[in-house]
Amino acid sequence: MGTPPAADFERIFHPKRLAIVGVSADGGYGFGSGILSACRAMGFEGEIFPVNPKGGTIDGLPISRSIDEIPGGLDFAVITVPASAVPGALEACRRKGAAGAEVVTAGFSELGTAEGRALEERVRAIASEDFRILGPNCFGIYCPSSGVTLLPGPDLSRESGPVAFLAQSGGMAIDFANAGNWLGLRFSKVVSYGNGVDLREDELLRYLADDEETGVIAAYLEGVGDGGAFFEALETAAARKPVVVLKGGTSEAGRRAAIGHTASMGGSRQIWSGVLRQAHAVEVGDIDELARVCLAFSYLPARRFTAVSCVGGGGALAVAAGDAAEQHGIEIPALAGELRSRIEAILPRPGSSAANPIDVANPFVPPETLAAVLRLAAEDERIELQVLVSLLYHYKSQALTLGVRVTEIAPFEELASAVAGVVRDTGKPVVVVLPNQKRGRDDLDVVEMLADARRAFLERGLPVFDGIGEALGAISRVNQYHGWHRGP
Amino acid sequence: MGTPPAADFERIFHPKRLAIVGVSADGGYGFGSGILSACRAMGFEGEIFPVNPKGGTIDGLPISRSIDEIPGGLDFAVITVPASAVPGALEACRRKGAAGAEVVTAGFSELGTAEGRALEERVRAIASEDFRILGPNCFGIYCPSSGVTLLPGPDLSRESGPVAFLAQSGGMAIDFANAGNWLGLRFSKVVSYGNGVDLREDELLRYLADDEETGVIAAYLEGVGDGGAFFEALETAAARKPVVVLKGGTSEAGRRAAIGHTASMGGSRQIWSGVLRQAHAVEVGDIDELARVCLAFSYLPARRFTAVSCVGGGGALAVAAGDAAEQHGIEIPALAGELRSRIEAILPRPGSSAANPIDVANPFVPPETLAAVLRLAAEDERIELQVLVSLLYHYKSQALTLGVRVTEIAPFEELASAVAGVVRDTGKPVVVVLPNQKRGRDDLDVVEMLADARRAFLERGLPVFDGIGEALGAISRVNQYHGWHRGP
Repeated sequence: MGTPPAADFERIFHPKRLAIVGVSADGGYGFGSGILSACRAMGFEGEIFPVNPKGGTIDGLPISRSIDEIPGGLDFAVITVPASAVPGALEACRRKGAAGAEVVTAGFSELGTAEGRALEERVRAIASEDFRILGPNCFGIYCPSSGVTLLPGPDLSRESGPVAFLAQSGGMAIDFANAGNWLGLRFSKVVSYGNGVDLREDELLRYLADDEETGVIAAYLEGVGDGGAFFEALETAAARKPVVVLKGGTSEAGRRAAIGHTASMGGSRQIWSGVLRQAHAVEVGDIDELARVCLAFSYLPARRFTAVSCVGGGGALAVAAGDAAEQHGIEIPALAGELRSRIEAILPRPGSSAANPIDVANPFVPPETLAAVLRLAAEDERIELQVLVSLLYHYKSQALTLGVRVTEIAPFEELASAVAGVVRDTGKPVVVVLPNQKRGRDDLDVVEMLADARRAFLERGLPVFDGIGEALGAISRVNQYHGWHRGP
Repeated sequence: MGTPPAADFERIFHPKRLAIVGVSADGGYGFGSGILSACRAMGFEGEIFPVNPKGGTIDGLPISRSIDEIPGGLDFAVITVPASAVPGALEACRRKGAAGAEVVTAGFSELGTAEGRALEERVRAIASEDFRILGPNCFGIYCPSSGVTLLPGPDLSRESGPVAFLAQSGGMAIDFANAGNWLGLRFSKVVSYGNGVDLREDELLRYLADDEETGVIAAYLEGVGDGGAFFEALETAAARKPVVVLKGGTSEAGRRAAIGHTASMGGSRQIWSGVLRQAHAVEVGDIDELARVCLAFSYLPARRFTAVSCVGGGGALAVAAGDAAEQHGIEIPALAGELRSRIEAILPRPGSSAANPIDVANPFVPPETLAAVLRLAAEDERIELQVLVSLLYHYKSQALTLGVRVTEIAPFEELASAVAGVVRDTGKPVVVVLPNQKRGRDDLDVVEMLADARRAFLERGLPVFDGIGEALGAISRVNQYHGWHRGP
C-alpha cells in the first residue's frame, strides 16, 4: 500500500467551520442556498458562513461579502459561484486555511472546449497537500454523522451506517443516498467528485479502507485518473472490506455520454470486469443492483451462504426460486423425509409442498406457522440462510371483501417479530422478499402497507428485497466476495 | 396446422349461463363464494347459478341444491367442491350440456399420491369433445369482455385489450392480471389450467392464434403435455402474432417445486431455449420481464427499432442508457453536428450534452423544451424510436422547499400531452422511463404522483417502464421477434 492520503479528511467530512460560497442574497433559490438549507435541515452542528458579494442575510445568518471577510479560519467550503469565479474562490479558501473545498459548479473540461479545459487546469493547480479539491462538476459530500449533505439532500437520513459510496456523478450520489432511505442502507460517507481534478477514487478508496465508520464501499466509476494507483487502492481496500463497483461508460454510446458528463474515458467491459475480479472487488450491472448488494453486505454476517431454504407461497414462486438459485450458484437442498413430514403436518393441505422450496400453499398462512416452518427447516444442518417470500399484497383482496384497510389486516408486525425470533434462536439469517403486483392508483394503500412492512423487518435487522431473483442475486455477490476472502 | 380445436370456446369464455358449484350456504368465505362475488363485481352479464346441497340464497341469488336442479341448460361451470366430489360435479355439468368447466379444487396428481393420481384419471375420463375441462388445481379464467374472472379477481380491470395469458399456475395468472392493472396491460383472456388434464397449452395456443381479440400471447409453462402438438401450435401461433414464454422449472430445485405445484416435468434450460427459438417464440426470464415485453408489443408498432435516441437527465443515466443499449443490441447513433447545435441551443448550459444520449442537464427542464428536443432528434433519419427518461421524483425536493405537494408541481400531464404530440407529428414512437428512487414511507406522495403520471402517459398510448435497462430490454425482444418475422 502506498503512502497514507495527504488530506485532512476529518476536517473535510466533519467541518466545524463551513463556508458556502455563492448563496443567493435576494431570497432566490440556487445550488448554494439549496446546500445551505439542506445542511441546516440535516442538523449540521458547526458554524456556517454564507458568502455573496451583495452581503445581507440568509436564513438568519449574516452573508459575508467575500471569503476573506469571514471572521476566523475555515475547515471546508462549498463552492457554487460561476465557473470563471471558481479559481479565485478556491484561492481565498486556501488562504483561510481550509482543509479542502467541493466545487459544485459545472462548465469545465466536460464542455469539451479549450476554455473549459484551461479553467480546469487552473483549478487543479490550486490543489495542494494542505488544500484538497472535490469536483468541479459534482454534488459534493453527504456525511450524516456531521450533517454535511449533498445537493439536493434535505430529506436524506440523519442516521449513520456502514455504507460508503463514491461516485463521479452527482446524480448517482443523490439517487443512491435517496434509495438508501427506503431500502434500509445507512451511510458513513457519500462522496461525489465529478471531474475529479484532485481527490478521486484512488485516495478516497485508501481513506475509506481505513475508515472505521465504513464497513462496505460502493463505487460508481466512469473513468479513473491513475490506473495503477487505482488498482493498488482497490485491491488493498477489497482485502479489508467488501468493495462493490458499478462501471459506467463501457459501450460506445456510454463512453460518448461519459465524456460529456465527467470528461471520463470509459474503457471496455471485458477489461474492466477482469480488473475488478483480479482486485477481488464485486462488479454489478446497475445502480439498483449496487444498492441491493450493499444491503446484503450490510445486514448479513461476513460469510458465504451456499445452501438455503426458500419458504413462501404459491407454487410458481417456489419454481422461480429454484430456477433463480441455480442461476446464482446457490443450492436449495431437498429436505429429508422426516423433516418434510413435520413441516407438512403444520401446513395447509392440499396445495403445500415441504420439499424445499417450501410452498406454503397460500398467502394467508399465519406468522406463527411461517415461523414454525422456518424453525423446522433450520434444523437441516446444510441450510445456512433462509429466504422468506411473503405475498402480503394479497391481503388487499381480503380487505376489499371485508371492507377494511389492508394495513389493518396484513400481519407484518407479527411476522417481523416472529421471524426475528427465529433468527435469534437458530443463528441462521433470514432474508425477506416482499413482491408487489398491486402498484396502481387504486392500490396505494398496498404500497403504504408494504413500506411499513419493510420498515418493520429492517428495524429487526432483516433485509428486504422486491423479488426472489434480486435477493438471490445479492446473496450470490456476498458469496463471491467471501469466496475470495476466506481469511487466513 | 392441425385440426381446429374441438371446444366451444365462445361458450367457455363468454358463458350466458354459469354455474358456480361449491358456494358457501352460510355466509362463509370460500373459493366458490369468492368467484361469485368477483364475477358480479366485474359486471358479468349472464345468469349465475350457485350450487350447494344446503340450498338457501347467496348475494340475493337462490342456491340450487344440485347441478341437476338448475333450471335449464349451462354454458360453463366453476367447480370448487372438495376433490372427491369433483368427478360427480363434472358429470352433472356434462349432463346439463355445458361446453366445459374449470376445476379450482386442488388435491390431485400434484399430491404425489396414488389416490391423487387415480382421482385425476377419473376427471380426465369425463372430458370429451363436447365437454372440456380446465384444471384441476387452477384459478380459472379471466375474460374482461364477458366479466368472468379468476380467483381472487374482484379488482381486475374491466377493460379488454390485446394480451392473452396462459399459465398452469393460478398464482402467476392472478399476479399477471394484477400487474396489468397498473402497468397498462389489457387482456383478451387469461387462462390458468393447473394440472391440465384436458385443455392445455397446445389447444389454447391454437385457439388464441385465431382469436381476433388477441394480439399478443404470453405464457408461463412448467411443463407441456404433448411435446409435438405443443411445438406445432407454438410455431403456428408465433407466425401469426408475438408469443412470449416464461419457462419455469428448469433447475433441479425448480423441477422439484414444479412437480409439487402442477405435477409438471421441467426440462433443461438449454433445450427449452432452443425449442422456443426454433419456434420463433420470445423467451423471457421472469414474470416482470414477461409483463414488460407484453407492454412493448401492445403499445409499439409491429416492427424492429434498431437505432434510438435517448433523452433525459442527468449524465449518469445517459451513460447507463448507452451501456444498456449496447447490451441489448440497440444503437444510439451520435447525432450530426448541425442537429446537435440546434438541440444545444435550447438546453440549459452547462451540464447538458446533445451527442445522443442527450443529457438535458437537470430534471426540471420544462415539458415543451423536452418535446422540442424530441422533435429535433426525430429529424435524424436513422432514429426509429425515442426513449424519454423523466426524473419526475426530483420534484419532491422542490416541493419540500416550496412547501407544496409534489403532485401540484410535477408537470406530468403537460409532458404526456407534449410527448404525444411529438409522436403524432413525427410518426416515431416514444417510450417513457419513470425511475423512482423515493419509495419510502415519507415519499408515498411521490409514488402517488408517479402512478398518476404513468396513467397520463398510458392514456396517450405511451408505454412506461421503471428503468432504462428494462425499457431497452423489452424493445430488444420486440426486435428479436420482428427480426424473425419480417413478412413475405
